[in-house]
Amino acid sequence: MILTKSYATLGPKGNLGPFQFERRSPRENDVVIDILYCGVCHSDIHQARDEWGGSIYPMVPGHEIVGTVSGIGKGVSYFNVGDTVGVGCLVDSCRECPSCHEGLEQYCEGGMVPTYNSMERDGSTPTFGGYSNKIVVREEFVLKIDPKLNLAATAPLLCAGITTYSPLRHWDIQKGKKVGIVGLGGLGHMGVKFSQALGAETVVFTTSESKKSDALRLGANQVVLSKHEAEMQTHQNSFDFILDTISAPHDVNPYLQLLKRDGSMVLVGVPTKPMEVSALNLIFSRKSLSGSLIGGIKETQEMLDFCARHQIVSDVEVIPIQKINEAYERVIRSDVKYRFVIDMKSLS
Amino acid sequence: MILTKSYATLGPKGNLGPFQFERRSPRENDVVIDILYCGVCHSDIHQARDEWGGSIYPMVPGHEIVGTVSGIGKGVSYFNVGDTVGVGCLVDSCRECPSCHEGLEQYCEGGMVPTYNSMERDGSTPTFGGYSNKIVVREEFVLKIDPKLNLAATAPLLCAGITTYSPLRHWDIQKGKKVGIVGLGGLGHMGVKFSQALGAETVVFTTSESKKSDALRLGANQVVLSKHEAEMQTHQNSFDFILDTISAPHDVNPYLQLLKRDGSMVLVGVPTKPMEVSALNLIFSRKSLSGSLIGGIKETQEMLDFCARHQIVSDVEVIPIQKINEAYERVIRSDVKYRFVIDMKSLS
Repeated sequence: MILTKSYATLGPKGNLGPFQFERRSPRENDVVIDILYCGVCHSDIHQARDEWGGSIYPMVPGHEIVGTVSGIGKGVSYFNVGDTVGVGCLVDSCRECPSCHEGLEQYCEGGMVPTYNSMERDGSTPTFGGYSNKIVVREEFVLKIDPKLNLAATAPLLCAGITTYSPLRHWDIQKGKKVGIVGLGGLGHMGVKFSQALGAETVVFTTSESKKSDALRLGANQVVLSKHEAEMQTHQNSFDFILDTISAPHDVNPYLQLLKRDGSMVLVGVPTKPMEVSALNLIFSRKSLSGSLIGGIKETQEMLDFCARHQIVSDVEVIPIQKINEAYERVIRSDVKYRFVIDMKSLS
Repeated sequence: MILTKSYATLGPKGNLGPFQFERRSPRENDVVIDILYCGVCHSDIHQARDEWGGSIYPMVPGHEIVGTVSGIGKGVSYFNVGDTVGVGCLVDSCRECPSCHEGLEQYCEGGMVPTYNSMERDGSTPTFGGYSNKIVVREEFVLKIDPKLNLAATAPLLCAGITTYSPLRHWDIQKGKKVGIVGLGGLGHMGVKFSQALGAETVVFTTSESKKSDALRLGANQVVLSKHEAEMQTHQNSFDFILDTISAPHDVNPYLQLLKRDGSMVLVGVPTKPMEVSALNLIFSRKSLSGSLIGGIKETQEMLDFCARHQIVSDVEVIPIQKINEAYERVIRSDVKYRFVIDMKSLS
């Protein structure tokens, strides 16, 4: 067993604090990773505080993990000690169903295994995430990372990055397409960078005048204040694709009206309450409202390679793990540009 | 001008009764059609009674028209006197926008011209529909019909037929796919026939035990009582495509749960109130909720040719026009299998 230092919460109301536990010794196909950085995703907060229900305690959050391989099982062929690697939102899946065979493990029909707040496929061993100095993961769920990237700023690619990259690729975004990105937070700012790098005309929708200049700096061609009806009106029936990254309750209908015939709006934020959708908005121009969940392992590797080629990373604020509870409060206030990343050296 | 006998309503509360007016003499590209049969669509009732707002009176409803060409303009090359033809939901469009160029006139960006309860493209001449002995239509909006088909039963293909055929074709339904049809009325019964003819495994969802045997007779492989939760449960994550033909308020979420990953549910009924949609249902298997509106002229011709090859027509109850007000009441009570069709001989 591997004694592991980490930060955990013991219950829904508690702050995160130091926590020690043992990771399994590497099995034949396992990779041991010394964690360098771990991003802070809004879903960490929802789960730490049991806002989605069903949380498992103690909980070590974190699924935007970058580190260095420090050990490998006997059967591991794809990784060597010293490799720079990443782990995202899932650490296992059934590996047998059609979704797994198609490289879409996030939709595994047998049930994928989230990196934390879940049970392994044995049904009884809890998974612990990346707010930790080490993690042990099956090699099929480990990603290669170009060590020349800014590694702290690379960590959020493992969730915020792939969550926005995957739908842009699945809906075939490229030069000649007009793309809207709704919301400019951890997900939205990555959506802007990818849409721009894929060659699309990229328009950011935000409620904050103050985010305008930042959106343009990140690569947006235009910024629209979504509360400004006249401004919205000028974009009617003009978008091929709109990526909605907002998880707070909001009205999707004004955005559906901005889609062209056969256009698609895709939700990646997870509003917990049902949304009201006008059928007329869909019927009269054969529009679609869809959703997309992170991405598969193969596509996550493709995304990381794309980022290395295009020098794309996240905009981050690096913190020591001792500031994690304060960081949570700031995430809730949207007071971060655009992702907190924990420097795991601070654990020792 | 051509003096025309028809049935019209003079206001939202009135019954339909005899009405005479003049159709234009045929222009260069016009076809004059002696109407043989006209189907009764639920939307006729909504519009006659101004339930959607903006109705124009006097109103001659009817957009499921089958007749015989009795005259042609000098520039008409595609039709001859004596041809059996049809007219559906639209009689003109801008003919210049991308949608028109792609044969998707129903989505015309300049605004298509509905067959009745609308203005011609001049903005001032009202359009009058098919509850009439004659109609004059630009040849581009006239369809050829195989005279060997049962012509009364062919009339509903012009709206109920194309409305269900178009999405099944657009979403590429064929052998090997599992298709759900929600609702077994005028639209739904055509959806079953087309899905079956396209080779898909076809499952009908209905709330009425009494419709089970009819659904099977129409070609369904299975019938599911949608109120029966256990029965619904056995179909979880199994459908490639679900066509929702219901326009009354209803919950779409139980159907979204029946879709496979990447499956699509398409609305063709027009619920006037917003629907509640759970984002989780879309995100966790990349599902889509879409809408579809009738079909373009080219695809309507393709559908009519498909029907001639496969001997597909609608199940109809033929009535004289004097029974139209009674028929409306029966449509509202869903007391028709599955479409009323007016025999226009009854006008003379």
